[in-house]
Amino acid sequence: MIVVSVREMTNVYKGIARALGALPEEAEIFAQCHVRADLRGMYTQGAAIIPYAVGLLERKLNFFGVPFKILREEPAMVLVDAGYGVGVVVGTRAMELAMDKAKQAGTGCVWVRHGGDFNMSANHVLQAVEHDMVGIVMRNENPRVAPWGGRDPFFYTNPIAVGVPTKKEPPIIIDMAAGSFSIGQVVMAARDKRPLPSKNLVTPEGVYTDDATKIVIDPYVRESPFNGSPVTLGYKGLIWALIVELFSGLLAGTNTSNKNDYKPTPDRPWDEGCFFMAIDVSKLRPIAEFKAATDDFARALRAVRPAEGFDGIIVPGEVEAHNEAKRKKEGIPVRDEDWQLVLNTATRLGVKLVS
Amino acid sequence: MIVVSVREMTNVYKGIARALGALPEEAEIFAQCHVRADLRGMYTQGAAIIPYAVGLLERKLNFFGVPFKILREEPAMVLVDAGYGVGVVVGTRAMELAMDKAKQAGTGCVWVRHGGDFNMSANHVLQAVEHDMVGIVMRNENPRVAPWGGRDPFFYTNPIAVGVPTKKEPPIIIDMAAGSFSIGQVVMAARDKRPLPSKNLVTPEGVYTDDATKIVIDPYVRESPFNGSPVTLGYKGLIWALIVELFSGLLAGTNTSNKNDYKPTPDRPWDEGCFFMAIDVSKLRPIAEFKAATDDFARALRAVRPAEGFDGIIVPGEVEAHNEAKRKKEGIPVRDEDWQLVLNTATRLGVKLVS
Repeated sequence: MIVVSVREMTNVYKGIARALGALPEEAEIFAQCHVRADLRGMYTQGAAIIPYAVGLLERKLNFFGVPFKILREEPAMVLVDAGYGVGVVVGTRAMELAMDKAKQAGTGCVWVRHGGDFNMSANHVLQAVEHDMVGIVMRNENPRVAPWGGRDPFFYTNPIAVGVPTKKEPPIIIDMAAGSFSIGQVVMAARDKRPLPSKNLVTPEGVYTDDATKIVIDPYVRESPFNGSPVTLGYKGLIWALIVELFSGLLAGTNTSNKNDYKPTPDRPWDEGCFFMAIDVSKLRPIAEFKAATDDFARALRAVRPAEGFDGIIVPGEVEAHNEAKRKKEGIPVRDEDWQLVLNTATRLGVKLVS
Repeated sequence: MIVVSVREMTNVYKGIARALGALPEEAEIFAQCHVRADLRGMYTQGAAIIPYAVGLLERKLNFFGVPFKILREEPAMVLVDAGYGVGVVVGTRAMELAMDKAKQAGTGCVWVRHGGDFNMSANHVLQAVEHDMVGIVMRNENPRVAPWGGRDPFFYTNPIAVGVPTKKEPPIIIDMAAGSFSIGQVVMAARDKRPLPSKNLVTPEGVYTDDATKIVIDPYVRESPFNGSPVTLGYKGLIWALIVELFSGLLAGTNTSNKNDYKPTPDRPWDEGCFFMAIDVSKLRPIAEFKAATDDFARALRAVRPAEGFDGIIVPGEVEAHNEAKRKKEGIPVRDEDWQLVLNTATRLGVKLVS
């Protein structure tokens, strides 16, 4: 583990983005979103994913500098074509649009075609929370997760994030894969040769296992291909994955994940979709009252007595808020090999590194 | 098992509702919603729940004939006080309101205070589907489900339903508890002395078990109190239960389920909330194109090869649609003891039974 300061990490990421054609505002968003992932301890969406994000740009599957094209607009919804813009930039702009609509109509829903991988979903619900709104984000992509009871990859991990403003408590930030595990978790488990907490991986022979090394082809590649896949968390997990496909793929009018089962090329990139929703809480009840109620709720949940073998209930977002505060002061711990890859990438792109 | 015709069951339910003060339109909704539950095979929301629904009315915790009071209104959202109206009636009217908004704004969200138990959530998303819209429904109530890792009831089972229109395939209808099990499932397992499929019940001592008889106090009461509770389906289940509390309780400005931990009386009924959302799909893409895409999606999901020990993937809603078609012709099988209780209730209320 190496410890990198927020300032250094931000500068490296900004340099990488600029070298790849980002406008200054885009480079800022790119840097902030990826730094924030490592700040919050979502390490598979931070430094670890930079080489992959750079690869998408270099392979002309993602672009900086693409404006939104509005395809449909109603008082409470917008459908945009993001033209394969960089995911974090698209996500930031889409949530801004959703918030604008929510201010007018109470709620705002933005569906995005050709949106790109926005990495840590929490980034965009935090945007809403920082404006006293509830934010929701979903995304699909290519087939990586098998439905419960099945053996073929069909769903993407189908992330969903929800952010809820609070008063004194850390904001409630849900950021999870609708599949049993995120791709990053499975790759890291294979790298560390750790068994996963449940037998929710399936081999191509249809056997359920907790051994990530049986399915991950190259554990040193964050987005390694799998020989097999994770499965959804039971039948209910399948349903949550399905809800994300509904919002991201079917309603956006792009593909469901299962239809993106090929190696993307500039001529035929993946047709994934994203969904962003903002709810202007103040239109329903006074915001101070709402925030006091969420504080109460978080405290009551934390106070539930643990069952045998458990330490207690963790409210989603509290660990991440603690990490963020601590790391802003003390710097960000990163796996040596991940940071080395980031620095190699930066050097290769001609970014001037000042330490 | 006794087999009851749709006509007979409808008439008995209408008679019961009229005897309890329902307007003709309300009696119609009451009968249709409860009959449809047994038609679709959601038997714990059909005949089995009638004595409980009647009890709520007789104990003055629910009322027929209460109009909606609009508290807030924006282009895409409405907040109403339903005045402890009967759940199925409130749900039907709330989804109508959500659809009206969706026609204007693209999406419509309706939050309901003092809404009542609407029993089978699928009823109200089917309303949306029958108008070519996507429908979503959520509801909280009183504490019955412990968070994963905890031993105290905190969440209600927190049902969520989502309906998606299709072309030739049965509509995709999700109707599930965010907890591991619904109350009805647990009570029925205790009645039949069957172990549940996983150890997701917790005793007051904090021990996880699959033995429903250890926690259900009276298995012959559909809404039996528990000594202990079901837990959420892992940490992810906890998060889904939390999302339902956000929409039903925190945003509606009523209580979260944990705050309704008392025996309700007419002076102090439970302050539960409900959420209804409709999405006018045609505002995003041509409805025929959308329906063809959902058909494709359902067929592709069904075609996934099963893993070892599984028979195949079931698309949510297909079994229920099959039941509904079959039972409309052949009549509805009901457990003898449940139907006898319904008939006893009807007789007690002076309903004239014509067989």
